[in-house]
Amino acid sequence: MSLQLLPLIQQGNTRALARGISIVENEIPGYEELLRALPSSATKIIGITGPPGAGKSTIADGLIRLMVELGRRVGILCVDPSSPFNLGSLLGDRLRMGQWYNNPGVYIRSLATRGSLGGLHPKILEISDLLKAAPFDNIIIETVGVGQSEVEIAGLADTTIVVVVPESGDEIQTMKAGIMEIADMFVVNKADRPGAELLAQNLRHRLTSVQDVYVKPVPVIKTIASGNEGISQLLDAVNTHQASPRSAEKKTWLLAEKAYRLVQNRRMKDIDKIDLKSRIQDATANNDFNLYRFVAEY
Amino acid sequence: MSLQLLPLIQQGNTRALARGISIVENEIPGYEELLRALPSSATKIIGITGPPGAGKSTIADGLIRLMVELGRRVGILCVDPSSPFNLGSLLGDRLRMGQWYNNPGVYIRSLATRGSLGGLHPKILEISDLLKAAPFDNIIIETVGVGQSEVEIAGLADTTIVVVVPESGDEIQTMKAGIMEIADMFVVNKADRPGAELLAQNLRHRLTSVQDVYVKPVPVIKTIASGNEGISQLLDAVNTHQASPRSAEKKTWLLAEKAYRLVQNRRMKDIDKIDLKSRIQDATANNDFNLYRFVAEY
Repeated sequence: MSLQLLPLIQQGNTRALARGISIVENEIPGYEELLRALPSSATKIIGITGPPGAGKSTIADGLIRLMVELGRRVGILCVDPSSPFNLGSLLGDRLRMGQWYNNPGVYIRSLATRGSLGGLHPKILEISDLLKAAPFDNIIIETVGVGQSEVEIAGLADTTIVVVVPESGDEIQTMKAGIMEIADMFVVNKADRPGAELLAQNLRHRLTSVQDVYVKPVPVIKTIASGNEGISQLLDAVNTHQASPRSAEKKTWLLAEKAYRLVQNRRMKDIDKIDLKSRIQDATANNDFNLYRFVAEY
Repeated sequence: MSLQLLPLIQQGNTRALARGISIVENEIPGYEELLRALPSSATKIIGITGPPGAGKSTIADGLIRLMVELGRRVGILCVDPSSPFNLGSLLGDRLRMGQWYNNPGVYIRSLATRGSLGGLHPKILEISDLLKAAPFDNIIIETVGVGQSEVEIAGLADTTIVVVVPESGDEIQTMKAGIMEIADMFVVNKADRPGAELLAQNLRHRLTSVQDVYVKPVPVIKTIASGNEGISQLLDAVNTHQASPRSAEKKTWLLAEKAYRLVQNRRMKDIDKIDLKSRIQDATANNDFNLYRFVAEY
């Protein structure tokens, strides 16, 4: 039944795609067969991450507009943290995307992180692979950069764009080491604000020292996404990155990362944290509780 | 052989402790027996996290001084990222700790993250449990807040202290949602700088809205760690937190988190990422490579 969705998805039927995503998201019987039937796909994924307020949605919006003008079909996954703290700002961002919901060349799906602290979404790998089976020319995954999500997006996207703003100038000092390692390119957005050029220079300087180690040229692009400035340069940089020889190398690395996470998810599937907690509660009533003896039986 | 170390560790022999840590760190045969023989321990762990430059080491240093004055024995684990980007600043921080290396009441061990992107240390759980077998009155784990490490420290420490500085004022807006959830208390360090009071107020305000959801009172303490100001208030807050009824509840949660991670580590032990990558490289030479069929055999 779910297998019959595949040819429809491949033909560009977005209702079939939406249904396929729901089947995978909720692990409805047949979801594994559907995943194992997916053909290999050359469609590449653009990941956009960065702190809240940096303008990720506006940049995604600009990229979508440009892609639609070029006649491309675009699939977008928006991953929203389900944390209750910043719903307001997120809803504001999402409104901007609204204009695309009725465009036949654009498919948008929002996914909540479902409380996995700092993670993207438990089925993000599988859902992005479903999107790759549909006839999209470009796929964009946009996420709020909290906790572990930057690292996860880098393990998923062929091209990872990290968006920063002049106000994050001080943060560059304290910028998480991981970010420098995962970014395929940086965008300095809101580049009309003071400090933008200095931030771009600092980034280039730091990236040069990174490159000594990793030999990886990382572009830094200035944009004013709200005025649509710099977006075509960004798309050029993405195209150049995806056509580079390193891109094939990265593809293998990505597949290995994805395989590792899929195996991990499956092997841990039988462990219910709630149940684990209640079993530990019982076991600790015993005075000589030892965690290593406790886990030995799993 | 490694089992014979345990009584020595329990007597406070730091050479035996150092040897035990090395045995566990390098998985030398007998390490599992050692871990399974550990008695249950009431010693609580204080975790200190926050961005580089916030003054975590200075705060740890102040807490150690105060604890030593009170006649307490203190064990400290310092987790340093092995990323090449910020070694300089870290070495500066570590020098400050140097004065304690020859104090008989203080044991300091540095651990490198060994390249696990954003993670703490692959054996941090086990090593901290070894420390709990030694006769320390207090255990402190200090870590640089990069990537996943804040979430990991929260899954390890009975009391998690998040250190921020007035300069991170703007960051509070963009502060990772996860941080608000994991902090048992905030320290606004360098509180003599402009903006400290405003930052503390903003934090208290945000924490109040968090408390509506989580009903968890989170103290915000101002310190000038370099001048030793506010450190005794911080220690008071730690003691109050560790004596609270929530502390017992949290202990069970922590044990469940730790059990989950230990099971995960063991179940994934046979998967070598390098090998996985080379197998995927071979498999993708085949045109109809499908990731889900590939992982089905694991």
